[in-house]
Amino acid sequence: MSRVNPPAMDTGMDDGLQLDVAIIGAGVSGLYAGWRLLVGDLAPEGTRPETVHIFELSERLGGRIESVFLPGISLAAEIGGMRYLQSHEIVNSLITKVFEQEVTPIDFPLGDDGNHYRYLRGQRFKANEWENAQADRRTYKTRYFLPDAVVGFTSDQLFNKIIYDVLMADPWFRERYPGKATFTAPYDYAFTLTAREWDDVKPNLTYHQSGPYDGLKVNDLGFWNLIKDQVGQEAYEFLSVAGGYYSNTINWNAAEAFPYLVGDFSNAEVKYQTLAGGYDQVGNVLAQRFLAQDPSGKRAHLWGQNGLRRIDPAPGGSPYKYILTVANAQSGKSWTVYAKAVVLAMPRRALELLEVDRFFATPEVSEQVRKNLDSVISEPSFKLLMGFESPWWHAEFNALAGESITDLPMRQCYYFGTDPSNSHSILLASYNDMRTTPFWSALMASPQRNLKRFKPRATRLASPESLAQVESLQAPAVMVQEAVHQLRELHGPENPVPDPYVSYFRNWTEDPYGGGYHAWQAGVSVREVMPFMRRPDPAERLHICGEAYSDQQGWVEGAFCEAEKMLQAHFGLAWPSWLDSHYYLGW
Amino acid sequence: MSRVNPPAMDTGMDDGLQLDVAIIGAGVSGLYAGWRLLVGDLAPEGTRPETVHIFELSERLGGRIESVFLPGISLAAEIGGMRYLQSHEIVNSLITKVFEQEVTPIDFPLGDDGNHYRYLRGQRFKANEWENAQADRRTYKTRYFLPDAVVGFTSDQLFNKIIYDVLMADPWFRERYPGKATFTAPYDYAFTLTAREWDDVKPNLTYHQSGPYDGLKVNDLGFWNLIKDQVGQEAYEFLSVAGGYYSNTINWNAAEAFPYLVGDFSNAEVKYQTLAGGYDQVGNVLAQRFLAQDPSGKRAHLWGQNGLRRIDPAPGGSPYKYILTVANAQSGKSWTVYAKAVVLAMPRRALELLEVDRFFATPEVSEQVRKNLDSVISEPSFKLLMGFESPWWHAEFNALAGESITDLPMRQCYYFGTDPSNSHSILLASYNDMRTTPFWSALMASPQRNLKRFKPRATRLASPESLAQVESLQAPAVMVQEAVHQLRELHGPENPVPDPYVSYFRNWTEDPYGGGYHAWQAGVSVREVMPFMRRPDPAERLHICGEAYSDQQGWVEGAFCEAEKMLQAHFGLAWPSWLDSHYYLGW
Repeated sequence: MSRVNPPAMDTGMDDGLQLDVAIIGAGVSGLYAGWRLLVGDLAPEGTRPETVHIFELSERLGGRIESVFLPGISLAAEIGGMRYLQSHEIVNSLITKVFEQEVTPIDFPLGDDGNHYRYLRGQRFKANEWENAQADRRTYKTRYFLPDAVVGFTSDQLFNKIIYDVLMADPWFRERYPGKATFTAPYDYAFTLTAREWDDVKPNLTYHQSGPYDGLKVNDLGFWNLIKDQVGQEAYEFLSVAGGYYSNTINWNAAEAFPYLVGDFSNAEVKYQTLAGGYDQVGNVLAQRFLAQDPSGKRAHLWGQNGLRRIDPAPGGSPYKYILTVANAQSGKSWTVYAKAVVLAMPRRALELLEVDRFFATPEVSEQVRKNLDSVISEPSFKLLMGFESPWWHAEFNALAGESITDLPMRQCYYFGTDPSNSHSILLASYNDMRTTPFWSALMASPQRNLKRFKPRATRLASPESLAQVESLQAPAVMVQEAVHQLRELHGPENPVPDPYVSYFRNWTEDPYGGGYHAWQAGVSVREVMPFMRRPDPAERLHICGEAYSDQQGWVEGAFCEAEKMLQAHFGLAWPSWLDSHYYLGW
Repeated sequence: MSRVNPPAMDTGMDDGLQLDVAIIGAGVSGLYAGWRLLVGDLAPEGTRPETVHIFELSERLGGRIESVFLPGISLAAEIGGMRYLQSHEIVNSLITKVFEQEVTPIDFPLGDDGNHYRYLRGQRFKANEWENAQADRRTYKTRYFLPDAVVGFTSDQLFNKIIYDVLMADPWFRERYPGKATFTAPYDYAFTLTAREWDDVKPNLTYHQSGPYDGLKVNDLGFWNLIKDQVGQEAYEFLSVAGGYYSNTINWNAAEAFPYLVGDFSNAEVKYQTLAGGYDQVGNVLAQRFLAQDPSGKRAHLWGQNGLRRIDPAPGGSPYKYILTVANAQSGKSWTVYAKAVVLAMPRRALELLEVDRFFATPEVSEQVRKNLDSVISEPSFKLLMGFESPWWHAEFNALAGESITDLPMRQCYYFGTDPSNSHSILLASYNDMRTTPFWSALMASPQRNLKRFKPRATRLASPESLAQVESLQAPAVMVQEAVHQLRELHGPENPVPDPYVSYFRNWTEDPYGGGYHAWQAGVSVREVMPFMRRPDPAERLHICGEAYSDQQGWVEGAFCEAEKMLQAHFGLAWPSWLDSHYYLGW
């Protein structure tokens, strides 16, 4: 299978290295920034940096995008970010216009809800029961004790109803955006606001409902506060659980939640795509193209296992503005890098571990950076993959793709796919977040103890030799057993779940990630914090970019948009020729 | 009313100060250590330090114990720790034998369950419905879809059943502790293990139940893992919600959870006590006695608004081992303190903010300290107090004390008490923890925004002048309104809830506390970590003590036991004359 592999990173060191731009973090925002800095068209006043080096703490590039190949299966499995939307124009344009020779977009199928299960409060049913009932003018009853007005709604429909009701309750919205939120038939809500329009709505929308929150800005409310006020606590529990992601309904910024849900989770029409051969290629191809700018490694260089420790101001008179102390993992030694500008392309937790606020010389800026680091929530997230010899989900209940959802701690499983050339298959056996991740992390090995690993089992396609190579990557046996136990409870006795032959897992909650994705706090002025982070102090050349402080959190597109705005505003780059000039990059 | 008030702290500085012992943190562990160091009997080889000074970051002493006096009410309200158990012998002995002239123990009443409400999944009922049904040989049904074997149990009874079943499933336990866990009648379990015996059981108990965890040590399981394996996820949800505290059922160390629950939450016989005039006097009286050792302020001194910033080794040849950098909040300046030994009497989050691992010169010790800091979980906790003109809970449904519980985000309210000399009354209007605290913190003012405060309302007893003094301490109006809204839903239309006239709140989740209390992680060897923290490096004189790394987490007694063991092992103190010589201080 053709696939763009990650280039090798240089795990050595070069004490005294002098750079125009140092980028910290080889996740997708750092890689995008590095590539664009070297190849992007310049704006009229722009000058191109001579040297751009990227420094990565780990031995892997791509950050929270990680494709995995299980022995016996040629299909890529995703343990991190796994897909994108058609509306993500930077990702889409790169894939279809810039890297179209290297990568191939494919559909990320969602399967048929009629073949998926819901198992909530011990009630097992097919995911299309709600719609079947609605078609027959019945209401499907779950074990949630819901107000009459919302019984029979799917979680998607109920999210939409809440958003619709809050929008339409504000006379300002009704007058300014007539026809942009519509209720056309029972259960059927539609929103046609553009991203630009949402950026007008989010800070301006006022909450109108008699009760504690009447008259507050929606931006000043948490999404839990708002949902509970609209439909009560039981309906809130239903939305949290049935929607699959606890992260969607934590008490994050309610105004930010509106377009986020409408643009993705609550929109039945949404189509996802990914890359044939693994979504990690989005980072790999950027890294390859970046390095290709100078095979000698001088202009462009990718340092692996080299983590930033601190940034100090260079002495007056130096042509360089900063002295970076970089810790090399292989030698255990630190080395010095001089840079004129530094891009910190990292999530909140990594920025906190570095105490980046200390890097800013002005106390007021430093204080403001510390405050703004807090303006997003790091969201714990945990994924467990399993390989099976055949797609039992297809044999047993005709599922081909998509997810089943439960309130068991496993929360979601994705029927990920089957190798087209054989029957070996991948299950994302658990995808869980927020309060469920500690259920699984207690079953992980830790510095305090060892746990016996799951023992991979050879199959007709996965040889003992190939399995031996992944033995050290297996999940603890107890974790695999518990997950299989829950898969069996979710699918019921009529759908026997066999034992997997191989596993892989990752807890994105761990340092330096702090979570799989991020969400804005209630009450934050997002439109001020976003540009602030891209350059906290006009007197400094220190920049923060990435998914965490974007308005498309959890998406590669969010990371790219922040990097792009930073590059245009602070590094003299022109609008990319390959990107629709009308595309809206956000605040 | 007679009451021991906190002594004034010195908010100045004394650059170059030289000390035998510097104690960081004027919470109850730091105050206890300071007092004992100056007055405790010495062991044969012990020598008394000449000078012991305590440094407190905030303007308040007592740490997570804080008594509050609302205008118009002479009764103390507790916004932090509020009570102790008869089994807490250090607390008890201090109160009844050492400080008996200064403080007066009183019962902390729990009221009558027949007058308390439960409101779970929208079902409102009296808390004694379960027991009433049991007396009639019926089973009371809630809206939880429980396995037949556990329908009709109260949460306390079900906790006990689980603990009993797990203990008795282990042949080792049955053989070693016959008769120590008994099941005498339906719903009725009893445990008579001593603390010493639990310390034998906790690391040795093996889990026996066919399934994923069979054969593992209970200490290697999370309590959620174990509960779900015993009774399923719905029963787990029931225990989490109906027990009142999410913290009790997070996935913390299952072995530690057993004695914790049996000794308190699941034990219907347990009696709580507190101090007339406020539980904060336990810290105040220690501080007064400490300072009384030297009115000149040389031997004993209490520095307020003076926070430790860093500890560096003193140069060779100095009689002092450490140089402390202390930041003075009032002047904004730092000053230097020399010390021969340092006691860090702080919770996990405060230790992390200081990066205390850096203070240890040996890299291996530093690494071990960092690892062991992680061995406990900081548990978010939030309390909101309200003052009412009369005890509507008594007028409406005859409640005098104790709590009602709900799955609404307010979780618990405590009918705290009524001023005996008038009718003004205190309600702990919300006591919530873990995943519910963000519901409330989104309604707090923050560096990002102001929120209008609740406007106190004068009553016949609370004058406008007295209320003006607490205006700046009021909760945001929206938080009070939301809490009243939930109080009304919990108590139902038949029990009207009036508006409060005053409020007070605290989110213990905020820095430097990180939480209201702590819990051990699964898989941690608690018996090793506890003594380690008290002196991580035998070559150093740096000590960590307090509630966080104790085996009575959430209790003053846990803080005292850790301090006491540290003083006896590392500061040459003898067993206190006022403490039963058979009392077990734990690992």
